[in-house]
Amino acid sequence: MAQVLVDRRDVDFVLHEQLKIEKISEHEKFAEFTRKTVDLILSEARNLAIKEMLPTLKLSDEQGCTFEKGQVKVPDSFHKLYHLFREGEWIAMCDTPEFGGQGMPTTVAMAAMNYFNAANFPFTLNAILTHGAGKLVEKFGTDAQKKVFLKKMYTGQWGGTMLLTEPEAGSDVGALTTTAVKNDDGTYSISGNKIFISSGDSDLVENTIHPVLARIEGAPAGTSGISLFLVPKIRVNDDGSLGAANDVVCTGIEEKMGLHGSATCSLTLGGKGQCRGTLLGEVNKGMRAMFVMMNDARLNVGAQAMGCASASFMNALNYARERVQGRNLQATGKDAPGVPIIQHPDVRRMLLTMKAYTEGIRSILYYTGYCEDMIRISADAGEKARYQGLIDVLIPIAKGYASDRAFDVCNMGVQLYGGYGYTKEYPQEQLLRDCKITHIYEGTNGIQAMDLLGRKLGLNGGQAFKDLLDEMTRCVSGTQATGGLEGAASSLAHAIGILSEVAQHLEAASRSAKMMDAFAAAYPFMDVTGDTILAWMLLWRASVAARKLEDGAKKSDVPFYEGQIKSARFFINAMLPVTVGKMSAILTDEGTVMDISDEAFGGK
Amino acid sequence: MAQVLVDRRDVDFVLHEQLKIEKISEHEKFAEFTRKTVDLILSEARNLAIKEMLPTLKLSDEQGCTFEKGQVKVPDSFHKLYHLFREGEWIAMCDTPEFGGQGMPTTVAMAAMNYFNAANFPFTLNAILTHGAGKLVEKFGTDAQKKVFLKKMYTGQWGGTMLLTEPEAGSDVGALTTTAVKNDDGTYSISGNKIFISSGDSDLVENTIHPVLARIEGAPAGTSGISLFLVPKIRVNDDGSLGAANDVVCTGIEEKMGLHGSATCSLTLGGKGQCRGTLLGEVNKGMRAMFVMMNDARLNVGAQAMGCASASFMNALNYARERVQGRNLQATGKDAPGVPIIQHPDVRRMLLTMKAYTEGIRSILYYTGYCEDMIRISADAGEKARYQGLIDVLIPIAKGYASDRAFDVCNMGVQLYGGYGYTKEYPQEQLLRDCKITHIYEGTNGIQAMDLLGRKLGLNGGQAFKDLLDEMTRCVSGTQATGGLEGAASSLAHAIGILSEVAQHLEAASRSAKMMDAFAAAYPFMDVTGDTILAWMLLWRASVAARKLEDGAKKSDVPFYEGQIKSARFFINAMLPVTVGKMSAILTDEGTVMDISDEAFGGK
Repeated sequence: MAQVLVDRRDVDFVLHEQLKIEKISEHEKFAEFTRKTVDLILSEARNLAIKEMLPTLKLSDEQGCTFEKGQVKVPDSFHKLYHLFREGEWIAMCDTPEFGGQGMPTTVAMAAMNYFNAANFPFTLNAILTHGAGKLVEKFGTDAQKKVFLKKMYTGQWGGTMLLTEPEAGSDVGALTTTAVKNDDGTYSISGNKIFISSGDSDLVENTIHPVLARIEGAPAGTSGISLFLVPKIRVNDDGSLGAANDVVCTGIEEKMGLHGSATCSLTLGGKGQCRGTLLGEVNKGMRAMFVMMNDARLNVGAQAMGCASASFMNALNYARERVQGRNLQATGKDAPGVPIIQHPDVRRMLLTMKAYTEGIRSILYYTGYCEDMIRISADAGEKARYQGLIDVLIPIAKGYASDRAFDVCNMGVQLYGGYGYTKEYPQEQLLRDCKITHIYEGTNGIQAMDLLGRKLGLNGGQAFKDLLDEMTRCVSGTQATGGLEGAASSLAHAIGILSEVAQHLEAASRSAKMMDAFAAAYPFMDVTGDTILAWMLLWRASVAARKLEDGAKKSDVPFYEGQIKSARFFINAMLPVTVGKMSAILTDEGTVMDISDEAFGGK
Repeated sequence: MAQVLVDRRDVDFVLHEQLKIEKISEHEKFAEFTRKTVDLILSEARNLAIKEMLPTLKLSDEQGCTFEKGQVKVPDSFHKLYHLFREGEWIAMCDTPEFGGQGMPTTVAMAAMNYFNAANFPFTLNAILTHGAGKLVEKFGTDAQKKVFLKKMYTGQWGGTMLLTEPEAGSDVGALTTTAVKNDDGTYSISGNKIFISSGDSDLVENTIHPVLARIEGAPAGTSGISLFLVPKIRVNDDGSLGAANDVVCTGIEEKMGLHGSATCSLTLGGKGQCRGTLLGEVNKGMRAMFVMMNDARLNVGAQAMGCASASFMNALNYARERVQGRNLQATGKDAPGVPIIQHPDVRRMLLTMKAYTEGIRSILYYTGYCEDMIRISADAGEKARYQGLIDVLIPIAKGYASDRAFDVCNMGVQLYGGYGYTKEYPQEQLLRDCKITHIYEGTNGIQAMDLLGRKLGLNGGQAFKDLLDEMTRCVSGTQATGGLEGAASSLAHAIGILSEVAQHLEAASRSAKMMDAFAAAYPFMDVTGDTILAWMLLWRASVAARKLEDGAKKSDVPFYEGQIKSARFFINAMLPVTVGKMSAILTDEGTVMDISDEAFGGK
């Protein structure tokens, strides 16, 4: 039967054959997550996604969120869905059971989220931000804060957000002007305007808890003077019951290209001087706290993009197998029968590109989750640090690079349907529109590229990036003797070598007088790093598949394993040379981006 | 003053300095189109575009077209606009004055259209298709058909369309099933269903004239049995007055991702057996007639994409000069002032990419128009044939490659605005949505790629493609001694050499047993051909600019000319190596796209 949304066989392959997550469940922390349990969890997620969430996708895009008389309303269909989502306990999958979380391995949660995000990620966003806000409370809150807020957040009774952006402080968070003044009772009076707040207000929950970045009177300028506060929409009494409104007012929601099922709110805090919050964590350490949560938030954005790509690819594949149009190019005579378009070379090129990207992204994201799990179960500080380094380097790839490639997949997903792809009769155009936001929020992809070059490349004296290259090289070495993959392995080895050279070149340049030139190459550097990692993931998959075939796989699995080998060879033969071309451009370019005056861009 | 929509200085540069269209006005046919007249025409176009069309862009996107009680209505604001557009005689700019056209050089019309398409191309589409339909009448119609229809079409009193696509005949036009049965009076009774018909019905015009592809009873299967008919919505008497309704019924309009200002109609012809049409041209020569018009139609689609790119780039450039966010990366200390984002390296990379693409596409499209003009004024059959060959090779690039790169520009145009780019407060997201249709209609870009490889590469025994390479090489040779451009010229020469090799390789493969593999590389081949042509255009521009600077340009022109040199160097140094990588992949790939079974794509 044709799969929809997500290729379950591929999900299982990554979890159990590529990453072998059974190793994780051997640890007592995850002992209950046996193969059988994981299968059940994913089947539940799939059912909910296909039967309940997917039918709301188009509806919620059309209806959108509304803002009337000061109240935000989400699409009607989301109320039942949110109830089911809470009931299934999907909001805080990986969080601590003590506070209402499910204690699931991140790898498994990534797989479940794959279904939810593929079915309707704007809905999922309504629910999942709460987990991030809750995590901040869990990590930095006092016992009293935890007691009052946490369980209600992790179970979805209350919602959570993140209040960072202001009209004049977007990518430059340090420019924010929201203020906090300490009151006699230890609370703070907060005052300011925040914009672009997903679920900043919602009729799905009885209260919304806002972690807010603000500057305490007299604090230093820039990011080092920012503190984090917990500001509920409705004040909460010590016993957890609701009090009076807290002067947090939604002033409007954005009209957007997509993501219509998620309200993007403007909020005014303390317009009447009555907005009270409590400090979360330490004074002036707000940015540090946010940074701790940022990896998680950015990985989630990558997962949203993966959801769009995954659905668009499955749709396109099913369509290409059914849609009859044109004859075989090699057929002669007018009587040749029509063929399904999957048989046309250019359609195959698109499908294979979509497959390579979607599956490669899946592996990158699940692997990042896997590293999280390894930290959670490892007793060895060195090993923990090594995995943390891998995660830190992978995050800009999992968010920035992955969302760029997911958009490419969605773009081809429209294209493959021809004229139908442009219509709202099919989901493809919505997936493209929705996917676009993943390039922008939680730090634009340009910011991700700067993060990779400016922070991650030199992390731990460059050890983290080197560890990643070593992981890749280990895979290549293990594959070089695998029949049919020798060529691909040696091409990847070649690319890894040049990537290492590019990294050293840029790292040195970024600390020299050529710093601006280096940062002008940050984005291409993210591209080539991502391509190489993706090629690694595909080769890793192919080497697993080749061994399974050698060992005599069951007949029904043979095409799947062969598909793994084919997509690795396709990507490495037909696409990695393009990456190598881009790497050579980085190495030889003499700063053409910065070498132009502002005036010379024209337009005057 | 900041330019909007289109950089006028750049338009003038291409027309008068790169292409030197004064040569064209030296010919008696175009004698009235002096520099002064051309300037006036473009200023008129700019005024209409900025003052009247641009204000309708967002409105018409929001309101869209409606279909109620069998009647299509365009957005309200289009009625006044259409009146002005007709009054300005913009519908048939290049067509024969005898029939109501303006007889303008195509190059100049491309420049005027640049403004209209940048301001609101869904509106422009409402008006401009009529010219294409009219051209068919002019070229293939009888004197009686011309007399009755032509002037009313070229002046916009009546609209025109193209009825090709059917539900089961999209890219495969030859599969169409609409039938035509000859009546005793020489007319034909037409019967069938057509879809995706832009302006298939409209309340802007009093009648709509449909050129319709249909198969006469007993005609051969496939494309060689297709004839072209002229079918008015309302029957037309011999004296040109309107008669009874002609049984052409609009049954619905598409809900689409963008292009909301243009109604995409489904039409049923002869549902009551009362649809009459007259043969246009010869029996069974319908496809040949359509092919004659196809170059023009595809060039227009490229021009629409260029319009989107042009507007998105100008908006982004103006925004980047005004939006203050973040500090100079090299600044030390917290007190460094905020800077306009144009100073940030990654923003510059985006702007320079947008500039190179937008200006390169402009040159490609205007040059294609220029070749048209050279055919119109040339007395030499060999020269005419040579220009026709250049046009034929350039068309898939001007439509397919140009629209892909225009979409990239629009995508960066959203990105550069950050969160604001995703909102409907700014035009960037609409430009991206609107631009997407240009990949699809008038033959998907996949079809363009097949056209380039399958038809154009071998055209005239390969002479047409060779002529194009020779043009490029001539430019390179003329630039190799130009100070500051030696390196760029030699890099381009290198790329041209490999492109020639790739072309020979694919041309041979496409006629061998490896035909399917060759066509799997058709799209990458279109990419690399387009990149090389774009690089040529930028180098050509740069060499003109360098000479102007050497000769002592006036001060206000210096930044513009320097910008030309910078963008050529940027594209050739930082981006052409990627192209070379893609060319090497085509040369060395061993057919990985075709070498996968249908099953192995997964999803089952």
